[in-house]
Order: sequence, then C-alpha cells, then structure tokens
Amino acid sequence: MLSQEQNEKLVRTGPGTPMGQLFRRYWIPALLAEEIPEPDCPPVRTKLLGEQLIAFRDTDGRIGLLDEFCAHRTASLFFGRNEECGLRCSYHGWKYDVEGNCVDMPSEPEDSRFKDKIKLRSYPCVERAGVIWAYLGPEGTQPPLPELEWATLDADQRFVSKRWQESNYLQAMEGGIDSSHVSFAHRYNIDTDPMHAGTPGLEYLKADTRPKFEVAESDGGLVIGARRVADDENYYWRITQWIMPWYTIIPPFGTHNPLGAHAWVPIDDENCWAWSINYHPTRPLTEPELESMRAGEGIHVKYVPGTYRPLANRDNDYLIDRQAQRERRSFSGVEGISAQDFSLQESMGTIADRTKERLGTSDAAIILARRRLLAAVEDLEEGNPLPGTEPVHQQVRSASLVLPNSVPFHEGASSALVARPGQEFVSI
Amino acid sequence: MLSQEQNEKLVRTGPGTPMGQLFRRYWIPALLAEEIPEPDCPPVRTKLLGEQLIAFRDTDGRIGLLDEFCAHRTASLFFGRNEECGLRCSYHGWKYDVEGNCVDMPSEPEDSRFKDKIKLRSYPCVERAGVIWAYLGPEGTQPPLPELEWATLDADQRFVSKRWQESNYLQAMEGGIDSSHVSFAHRYNIDTDPMHAGTPGLEYLKADTRPKFEVAESDGGLVIGARRVADDENYYWRITQWIMPWYTIIPPFGTHNPLGAHAWVPIDDENCWAWSINYHPTRPLTEPELESMRAGEGIHVKYVPGTYRPLANRDNDYLIDRQAQRERRSFSGVEGISAQDFSLQESMGTIADRTKERLGTSDAAIILARRRLLAAVEDLEEGNPLPGTEPVHQQVRSASLVLPNSVPFHEGASSALVARPGQEFVSI
Amino acid sequence: MLSQEQNEKLVRTGPGTPMGQLFRRYWIPALLAEEIPEPDCPPVRTKLLGEQLIAFRDTDGRIGLLDEFCAHRTASLFFGRNEECGLRCSYHGWKYDVEGNCVDMPSEPEDSRFKDKIKLRSYPCVERAGVIWAYLGPEGTQPPLPELEWATLDADQRFVSKRWQESNYLQAMEGGIDSSHVSFAHRYNIDTDPMHAGTPGLEYLKADTRPKFEVAESDGGLVIGARRVADDENYYWRITQWIMPWYTIIPPFGTHNPLGAHAWVPIDDENCWAWSINYHPTRPLTEPELESMRAGEGIHVKYVPGTYRPLANRDNDYLIDRQAQRERRSFSGVEGISAQDFSLQESMGTIADRTKERLGTSDAAIILARRRLLAAVEDLEEGNPLPGTEPVHQQVRSASLVLPNSVPFHEGASSALVARPGQEFVSI
Repeated sequence: MLSQEQNEKLVRTGPGTPMGQLFRRYWIPALLAEEIPEPDCPPVRTKLLGEQLIAFRDTDGRIGLLDEFCAHRTASLFFGRNEECGLRCSYHGWKYDVEGNCVDMPSEPEDSRFKDKIKLRSYPCVERAGVIWAYLGPEGTQPPLPELEWATLDADQRFVSKRWQESNYLQAMEGGIDSSHVSFAHRYNIDTDPMHAGTPGLEYLKADTRPKFEVAESDGGLVIGARRVADDENYYWRITQWIMPWYTIIPPFGTHNPLGAHAWVPIDDENCWAWSINYHPTRPLTEPELESMRAGEGIHVKYVPGTYRPLANRDNDYLIDRQAQRERRSFSGVEGISAQDFSLQESMGTIADRTKERLGTSDAAIILARRRLLAAVEDLEEGNPLPGTEPVHQQVRSASLVLPNSVPFHEGASSALVARPGQEFVSI
Repeated sequence: MLSQEQNEKLVRTGPGTPMGQLFRRYWIPALLAEEIPEPDCPPVRTKLLGEQLIAFRDTDGRIGLLDEFCAHRTASLFFGRNEECGLRCSYHGWKYDVEGNCVDMPSEPEDSRFKDKIKLRSYPCVERAGVIWAYLGPEGTQPPLPELEWATLDADQRFVSKRWQESNYLQAMEGGIDSSHVSFAHRYNIDTDPMHAGTPGLEYLKADTRPKFEVAESDGGLVIGARRVADDENYYWRITQWIMPWYTIIPPFGTHNPLGAHAWVPIDDENCWAWSINYHPTRPLTEPELESMRAGEGIHVKYVPGTYRPLANRDNDYLIDRQAQRERRSFSGVEGISAQDFSLQESMGTIADRTKERLGTSDAAIILARRRLLAAVEDLEEGNPLPGTEPVHQQVRSASLVLPNSVPFHEGASSALVARPGQEFVSI
Repeated sequence: MLSQEQNEKLVRTGPGTPMGQLFRRYWIPALLAEEIPEPDCPPVRTKLLGEQLIAFRDTDGRIGLLDEFCAHRTASLFFGRNEECGLRCSYHGWKYDVEGNCVDMPSEPEDSRFKDKIKLRSYPCVERAGVIWAYLGPEGTQPPLPELEWATLDADQRFVSKRWQESNYLQAMEGGIDSSHVSFAHRYNIDTDPMHAGTPGLEYLKADTRPKFEVAESDGGLVIGARRVADDENYYWRITQWIMPWYTIIPPFGTHNPLGAHAWVPIDDENCWAWSINYHPTRPLTEPELESMRAGEGIHVKYVPGTYRPLANRDNDYLIDRQAQRERRSFSGVEGISAQDFSLQESMGTIADRTKERLGTSDAAIILARRRLLAAVEDLEEGNPLPGTEPVHQQVRSASLVLPNSVPFHEGASSALVARPGQEFVSI
C-alpha cells in the first residue's frame, strides 16, 4: 500500500515531474524502426513521457525526433513533407533538419535571418535492434547506448513488437516482475503456449502456486528469485531480471525456446507502450517461431488493423470467452498470454490506486522496485550515478533452474545471470 | 426552482453524500436475477450509487455483491473465476466468498494468516420477484425486505425489465410522478399502446390537459391525485403512489390491464437504472401480454443487443420520426411510451439544472417529493424512522376513478389505495 | 506570440466574455435557410458563441431562435411540435412564439396568468442570401443588416455552404487572411482546382513563395496586400479583405471565375462554423459550377451523410494520401483546398497555443487582425462605433492585379476594392 503522494510520484512522468526527469536520463525505446522504414518516408507521430513528437528519417537516413508542432504557427508536422534532408511543414513551408534547426523558411524574404533563430526541440536517436531509441534528457547527460542482450544480437536472433496499453506504465511493469501470477492468470496456457509447450519446470509452476521470493538489488535494478518446490530436496527457481528503469526479462522455459523480455514505456500517465521481445542468444529464430510471433502468439498480440492496439481490448472486454474460462482453457477467459496480463492490468483503472492495495509476500519484488525507482529519483537529485545506465547493468539474463534447497540462488545461479555473447543461457 | 445547493443535495448520491447516505438505508433493486442466472455463472459488473461492484451467485446459489476490485492489487473481479463457493481473482488467485471474506490466498505461504485480514466490502442481497435487491447501508440498520405489491406476487403475475437511462435519477423519477405530461408527451399513443387501448378514461385524459393536483403525504411517500373533468358533476381522478425513495406506480387503465410501476435507481450521478414492472394482482399475465412486454412495448424498451441500453438513445436522437410527429402518431416524434419519457428527460442534460426551471401548479407533486426527500435526509440525521422502509408503507396501490365533485379523493379512493392480496384494484 | 492572457481574450466567446460581448454586436450567420426550409418544419438545434439554441420557422414563415430548453422543466425544444405559429414543448405542451413568449400553457388552469411571466431568451433573425442571420446582442443595439456583397446578390449568383470545424474560430479565420500559405498548402492544387484552373497569376503564386505584406486598416477591418514578383518591373498583388468580425474574401483567380469568401463563426470555444461562399457579382453561376460546388469541390467539402461534418476529418486523419503527397498531387497529402486548410488548423489543437508561435513578416495580417479585434473590445467598452457594423464597411471586394513596382497598392487598386453592384471585379 502506498500513500497517494508516493503513488503520484511513481506514476507521473511528464516534463518536470521527478519520475519524468529520472526517465529522461535513460535511452527510451521510442519507435519500431519499421515505422519509419526508409529515407524520406512519411513522418510518424508518437508520444513519450507526455510529449507529443514527430519522428522521421531524412534523405540521408538520419533519424529526427522533434516537437510535433511547427514553431511558426503550431501546425502539426504530421502533414509535413519529408524531402531533401528535412521535414517541411505543409502550412508555410518551414523546414527542419533532424536536429530541429529551421533550414529553410520560404515564406520569409530571401535575406531574412529569422530562420536562424528557430529551432524545434529535438532529441537524439539511434537505431539498434529494430528499435529507434531516443534520449529526452538534457544535452551532455547521455549514458552509453543500450546494451541489453536482445539489443545487441544479430537481427535474425530477435523479434520485437510493441503494443499500446491503456494504463499507466507502472501497473504494466509490475506485472512483468511478478512471477506469482503465472501460476494463475496463465495457468491453463502454460502448456499450450508455443514458447512453453513441453518444457520442463511447468509442472512445478502449476503445482506450487506459492513461490517464495528472494529479491536482491543488482547494479542495474533487481534480481528476483521466485522459489517453488521441485521435490523434497530441491527448489525450482525462476529468476527474473528487472533493469532500470523499465526492462524485464522473463525466466526461460527450456534452453531451446527463445527468451522473452519487455520494456514498459510511458506514453503519458494514462497509457504506455508495452514492448515485447523474443530472442535467442545462440541461434537464429526459426521460421515457424517467427511466424507464430508475427501472428501475435505468445507475448505478442494481434492488432486492430493499421494500429498497435490489440484486437482484444477494453472496448470489447478483451473478447472474454466464459466458456473457455469454464472449461479451463483460459483462467480468466481471455485468450493469449499477453492479453491475459493487460486485461487485468487495465482493469485496475488507467492509474491504479495503490492506496487501496494489500500486498503480500509474493509482492516483494514490486515493493522493492518501487523503492528503487524512488531512490533513483533521489540519486538524480544528488548527482549520483543512476542504476541501469551502464552497459554492464544491462548485460544480464534471467534463468530457470533447480537447485538443492541448501544452495542460495545467488550462488547457484550467479554465472547464469550474466549475458555473455555466444554463451548458452541457463534453463532446466 | 431550486438553489444550486438544494439541487446538488438532491442529485448527488455517492458515498458520503447526504442523499447517498439516505438511499443506503433502503433495499436497492440491483440486478435482474437473470443476469446471474445460476450457480457459478459468470460474475457481472454493476454500479450503484457511484460504487463499482461485482455480483455473482456462488455454487450454493448464494448471491455475492462485492467491491469490483480485488483487495490485493485492485484487478477487476470481472475476470474472476466463479467456482467452488467463491469468486477467485484471475490475477493471483485470491478467492472471496459472498460475504467478501478472503477464503483462499494460494499465492501466499500455506501457513500465512494474511487472508484472515482481508475482507472485501460486501453487501447483503436477497432475490425477490426476479430482482436481486441489495442493502448498501451500515450493518445492523437493514429495514424489512421489500413488500411492494409487485415484489410479492407469484412469478406469473409480473414482468420486470430494466434499462439504462443516461441522466440523473431525479429527473427520471420526476417524470414518474408527473401525471400532467401524459396528456402531451403520450397524447397520440394513449389509445394505441397495448396496455391502454380501449380502456375508459382516456377521453378525459385527452380532453382535460389541465389536471388539478392534490397531493398528500402518505406513510411511505406521497399520494398524488390528479383531477380532470369527467362531466359537470364528476371528476376523473388519476392517483399515483410515490413510495420512498424511488418507487412509482402508474394509475391503472382499466382493471383488466396489468398495472405499471417503476423504480428509479442511481447508477451514479449521471446515470440511473429505470426499472419497469407490469403486474396484475389477481391473475397471471397472458402470453400475448408477456410477448408484448418482451418485445419492448408499453413501458419497456427494445435494447441495443447484448446491453440494457435502449435501441432508441441519445446517439441516434431517439430515432425521432418527424413524419410521425407531423401526422400525430407521436407527439414528439419518438416512438414508445418509455422512449417518449426518457428522450425528454435526458435532453435536460445529465443533471438537470433546476435553478432554471419555472414550476407551475402541475408540478405540485414534484415540489413535494423533493421536500420529502430533503426532509428524510434530516430524519436520518436525527435518527427518526424513515418513510418507505416499512412493508405497510409499500403495500399501496394507485387507482383511477370517477368521483362526484363533492367527494375528496382521500375519502372516495381510500380503500382503493391499499394493496390487499387477491383483491381487485380500482380503475374505471 | 501572445501572452496566455491575450490568447484567452481572443478565443473565448461565451456569454460574458469580452470577445463574446463584442461578437454579440454583429449579425451572425446562424444557419443555412435550407435547414428550416418551410413553415412548421422540424426545429433545429444549433449552438452559437457557446449558447445552445433552437431554430424554427413558424406557420407564417417567421423565424424563431430561442434558448433550446423549455422554461418549465428544461426539456429540449428539439422534440417540440412546430405548429400553429409556435413551438410547443413535447413534455407539457408549453408553447412559444418566435419572440420566446409563452403563448399557451395547457397544463395550467384556464384562468392562470402564469404564462404571461414566461419568456424564453430569443434572438431576432433575418433571412438573406440563403442564410439565417441572428443578432445575439442586447436589445436596441442592432446594427444595419449585413450588406456583404455576396449577401445582396440574386440567388442564382451565389452558392453558400457551411461545415463544422473542430477548432476555435480564430485559428480558422487566421487561415483566411493568410495569403502566404497558398504557395505551400495548396501548391499542387492551385492549377487543378476547378475554380483556379487556367487562370493568370498562378505562375507568380508558385514562383514567389515569399510575399511581402502591406496591410492597411479599412473602415471595416483590414485590407491585406500580398505582393509577389511578377517581373522586373511589376508586382503581382493579391489583396484580401478582412471584414470584422469574421469575414474574409479570397482574392480572385480571373474575372470569369466566381469569387470566394468565408465567415468563421464560433460554435463554442472548441468548434466553429466555417461558412464558404462562391459568388459572381455580374452573372449567374453556371450549372457546372454549381454541380462542382454541391459536390464539395473548391472551398466546399463532401460531408459525412446527414451532417455538416467533412467526410475527411480528424477521426480519419483527413484521409491523408501519402502517395499523393509524394507524387506532388497534394502538398500535405490531404485532398481538397478546404480540407488542406482545416486539417492543419485543427492539428494545432482545438485552441491553438499562441504562446508558442513564432511569427514572421508573412504573419503581418494576422498580427494586425488580432490587434484590431482587441481594440474593438475596447471600442465597445468605451461606447465607440464598431468596425464592420456599417454596410459601407462590408461593401468591399478583394482583387488580384499586377501593378508597376512604383505604384502603392492602395492607389493602384483603390477602386477595385469597392463592391459596386453590377460592376465587374478586378483580377488579372
């Protein structure tokens, strides 16, 4: 349970808010590269941390991420012409380069220097792993580029999607560090999901619904051990990585299956982007795997055509199927791992009221993640280094393994929790 | 005309409001029994007096009406599994019985006593007359169960429906105690409506549009006599019962036709449930009558499929038919007694601004009903008995009759205004 | 750039606001006459300057424009019966004449004088040029009737349409006095639009995107000269008239083509009516011209059926066609002169934030128009005459002409800028 004040501090990420200022010190997954697929393609509107932005790729392939609205009379650059190394407003032809500089002002006299005074807010971007990453913080404060394992693999080893979630980022992210709900919300789909089917450990997950949590601070966030009984002498550990400020890695289901990861990025305080990534550190994804991901299975979704909105959404009660619920084909009646999560998360209201929650021992990771976020706000205020900003903070892995009861998971799993290029990950 | 302050006091019914506290001292028609038709059926969301609730019927047939949101992390119990005598949240499996007790907490350790501390807000319910009635007031303050005549008849003697009205309850209820509008809004349909056709008295209703009102306080609310000229020596009286806090009974159209009654129950301050009941105290409803009611005729409506929203609604201008209006098939152009009412009531705005109204003598009942509601708020504050809570307050009938000019309606109609089981009601 | 306070003063036009009080001193184009086409036709809801109104034409053809809501219990007169020289509320039959007098109150006793105390707010209306004009100001302050040239021509010489624009009036009107955007937003459609095709001057418009503005106060508003280079010795002048408070006249494209004009009328602070008029002072419009206008070409639009909402609207991204944008068939990708404007104007937000704009020399007319509006607010406060209220202020024309560099446009164009009945207008 949080005070209203604590909750507000955690959920508000607009310009000038404490959490908003913190998040602006990290690279942000802003768009799929495919949204601006080629030079001079149409500009794309996006919103991040409450800021309305326009993204485009110029003639030379450079990426621009600017204030959506022309500096002149505030028309949207969505209608802009992207041509000859700049985005030209359709209203009076003012043209901006990827840095926001006004490079042409054809409505003003030839000898006017007015354009030299005009600069749109712009944010540096990099493309990596099929994602456009943006930095919305003050100049000169950029951390190193993201080195999450999935972001550094060859293109054929990963699949990245995003979807619009109609809730605050925090309740979405809290689902990502919550091993406990897997035994319930996904109970009847653990076996049937294509990324889980036939993998060891599922029986423990279903049999022991009462995981004990051991959560440790990592350099970049938290290492969250959820321990279930395997047999009299052994525990089945599912170890989740949470990397500041919004990355999670799902513990693996077998070494053959791809890993799963997420990023939970605020659009504004009532909406977020849920990024879903499958990747395999040591092999290309297979065509059947890719087909299944493209079809919206597993942690991905089917979309309302032409949008990133899930087809199952709040307007249609997530296509809930009471018959499937009754027949134990779905615990909640909602189909699909992803929709099973976001239907519940969105049902909390666009911003969950954490003054009403009653947390148990299974919420240990959530409690600590909130603390760590609030502590990082203080770190920023005091000028301390920020967890999760360094590559080494990000080069981590989740793991699933069975350890003797007597072995603490940090010891038993320690080497499994580091991402080493080319090295197999650890899963029973 | 009311002051803004008076209007606010009358229309606001959320937790903690004066009128909300009053209404919480009465049994509330909450759902149709058919919404939760059988043990372990899907749970149903509902909202009453601004409170978001979940209703379910457990394995043993007991009815639960709980806070919609799980005490744990506030996910909606709409996604809950209703099984084995409780509703289980789909997120982490917390399970609640019909009293809101957390009876299972499978995400916490076996030996945890945490669940014993968890109790969801819950409200007692009874099923009567095809309606689930709920009591939202403080424990220990429940009045006797509802004994409205229609609520005590055999099932084959009544038909109950509900519809969503997109306005505050008060302007809806005011329509129900307003005999005057019948001569206008329903003018061209009095003859054609299946429940009125061919009954005596209609000619008076159409000929004399200027009823004189005589309104008396009853134990449970008001007895509202509307007097029209029958002939030189006689008056045609239509006598409406208003039973606190929101029940109305339409004066009858002949003794053969079923009676009509309503309940006007706040969903929140901008919406209400309009309950519509036909019943006959001394005979079963006929199959043709039931067919007509099921088809949405008379005081019932046709629905947007899968909802309780009328097919004719504000989004489609109530399917107004100007040709029908011109040709005197409908006074307002809207079809159906019910839609003729709620179209006008909703057109006042979601909360009517009573600081702008100009009331006439025909509004006497409305003025007194408001006063009685406000007086009952004071009664509650002072610990006095509340009108409408006792069975004898509710066992009343409306009546339609012709009396000599010299006979006061209380005298002439007195025995007609009491509901006596098995006894014919009074109507010309 | 404006201060927030200045912007607020300009954009707010509801009752009691400074700009609202000013606008109420002018005749307002309220409805198309065709909306209430004949005596006793259905009443029509409309909203002007934030006031919800009902318009009707009585049995004798008189026009009524009243408060939308019945004085009795505030039901909407949209459901009213328009018959026998008055609009009768469908709830209790109160009837109003075109002046808002309650002329019948059939729900009250015959001898009641209550109706004599009841009067709905009503506004005088006149019909002229296919438009119902209303005066919303205080009694006794009406200026002469509108004498804009298009409003005084024979019916066959003009075509008038209106459309709903989802933005404040001011950003819409600013587009109308902004010659500069024509070289951009409409660049690839200047040649192809049926009202422009093949007319002289287009080549200057396209070649010189940097018009110099010379703006002069006129008696009624502003005369806005936009000067482009024609050749070494001559300028091509496009001279726009802005007539207070919201009329604009597009400079002509050839003398054969009809002229174009607009009115930008606040519905409320977030919406406006964009009126579009084509007219020819010396000849009837041809059938092909009328067909094209009825089809929504040129400055008119295609509608969502049954509404005045453009088919291309914010909900469908104005049917933007990126291929057409790329292939230079449309500068912004939006089709149609009108939609090219309002798409950009609406993209600024419902109320443009003028604290963020950066105005250039091409915005001279906009700057002066704002000043003139604010000055007129002071004129009103000081009891001075108001610009644009007198017929002579309105009897003006725009013009397009080529003048030697040495000739100031006031001199070269002076006679061209006056509307003289039967006299050809001036355009190259």
